[in-house]
Amino acid sequence: MGKGDLKLLGTGVSPFVIRTRISLHLKSVEYEFIEEKLAAKSELLLKANPIHKKVPVLIHHDKPICESLIIVQYIDEVWSHGPSILPSDPYDRAVERFWAAYLDEKWFPSWKGVGLVHGEEAQKKIAGLKEGLVLLEEAFPKCSKGKPFFGGDQIGFLDISFGCFLGWARVGEIIHKVSLLDTTNTPHLAGWADRFYAHPAVKGVLPEPQALYDFLKPFIKPAPTN
Amino acid sequence: MGKGDLKLLGTGVSPFVIRTRISLHLKSVEYEFIEEKLAAKSELLLKANPIHKKVPVLIHHDKPICESLIIVQYIDEVWSHGPSILPSDPYDRAVERFWAAYLDEKWFPSWKGVGLVHGEEAQKKIAGLKEGLVLLEEAFPKCSKGKPFFGGDQIGFLDISFGCFLGWARVGEIIHKVSLLDTTNTPHLAGWADRFYAHPAVKGVLPEPQALYDFLKPFIKPAPTN
Repeated sequence: MGKGDLKLLGTGVSPFVIRTRISLHLKSVEYEFIEEKLAAKSELLLKANPIHKKVPVLIHHDKPICESLIIVQYIDEVWSHGPSILPSDPYDRAVERFWAAYLDEKWFPSWKGVGLVHGEEAQKKIAGLKEGLVLLEEAFPKCSKGKPFFGGDQIGFLDISFGCFLGWARVGEIIHKVSLLDTTNTPHLAGWADRFYAHPAVKGVLPEPQALYDFLKPFIKPAPTN
Repeated sequence: MGKGDLKLLGTGVSPFVIRTRISLHLKSVEYEFIEEKLAAKSELLLKANPIHKKVPVLIHHDKPICESLIIVQYIDEVWSHGPSILPSDPYDRAVERFWAAYLDEKWFPSWKGVGLVHGEEAQKKIAGLKEGLVLLEEAFPKCSKGKPFFGGDQIGFLDISFGCFLGWARVGEIIHKVSLLDTTNTPHLAGWADRFYAHPAVKGVLPEPQALYDFLKPFIKPAPTN
């Protein structure tokens, strides 16, 4: 398939866009990446996703597919000859879908404003984020069954759904000088994060923490100096 | 399979529970329905869904599956010999998943407090709900392709995801003496709603509007009398 048949509208730093890019790379599918400016959304984006007006949007043969987790499943179903993203067992699929929904609906929304708070407020936010990570730490051995990734030998649906946030987690660590993923509190996740970053489908897509921090710096409220 | 292998924890009026029941009925799967009291949640529920502590939970061979849309997909995948719930085409699947997510994340949350507002506030809320219905009205011919249901000849994922809210829509109409689904504004949906209510997998599961209204009455704030 020529690149012209498959376009991805996105931004380089959106974890939701990163998800879809990792999925396409995992399947070795070529696509045209169209960088959107969120301050001036293109006509193409507004037409392709009139309800949410958000990236990512995958446009395949002129048909738009919206919402990152739906796009990831679409990619898995269309390019079914490549490595499987969702597990084959219905229960394993349900478990991975559960945690992916948890991350999108509970965990990631609680990041909101992480760069704007300090002191007690920041401590409370960090504690909430850590609680979520402990749940994922406990889920890791059950999902991975002794293998290197949530998806087993290969990265899968939950690896991609969670791993796309790793850049943000590292930025949270830099801002608040805390440790979110480390070998003491979340040993499984610490090892998994290193393996995920190094995966060929992920390399070059997941921003390096310092680059993401520099990008986000204008939106970070400096700590009060007293 | 004996009923003992499959339990559903739920309440009779929850649209999210109704979804899972319709899916099981569509697949002609026997199950034990365990009615939960939300004011005093059972140990079984708290243990089966420790993260959200919410119904529905499907327990299959002692393994819990949570979150209604995930349960519906699980049912479709495990009892794959019955009528298909999700369409077979990946694009059609993505479209149905998109609208189901829209209903859960945008449309149904805007129902919150519908029984507590009157006057201008109520008008604004009703207008928002109607806007959502117009989107679904427009989606209907594209999904159904001239057939009686979103899913075609048979009820499918979007029919179930949307239809489970019909009781609440009718209650909204009773409370505010308005018409949400009618042959003038949403002719496709009006006909579809009648067909959905009459479907054998739905009958006896979706509460009749008056029964649901009577149940919700204590939570409805009467209109000011002046």
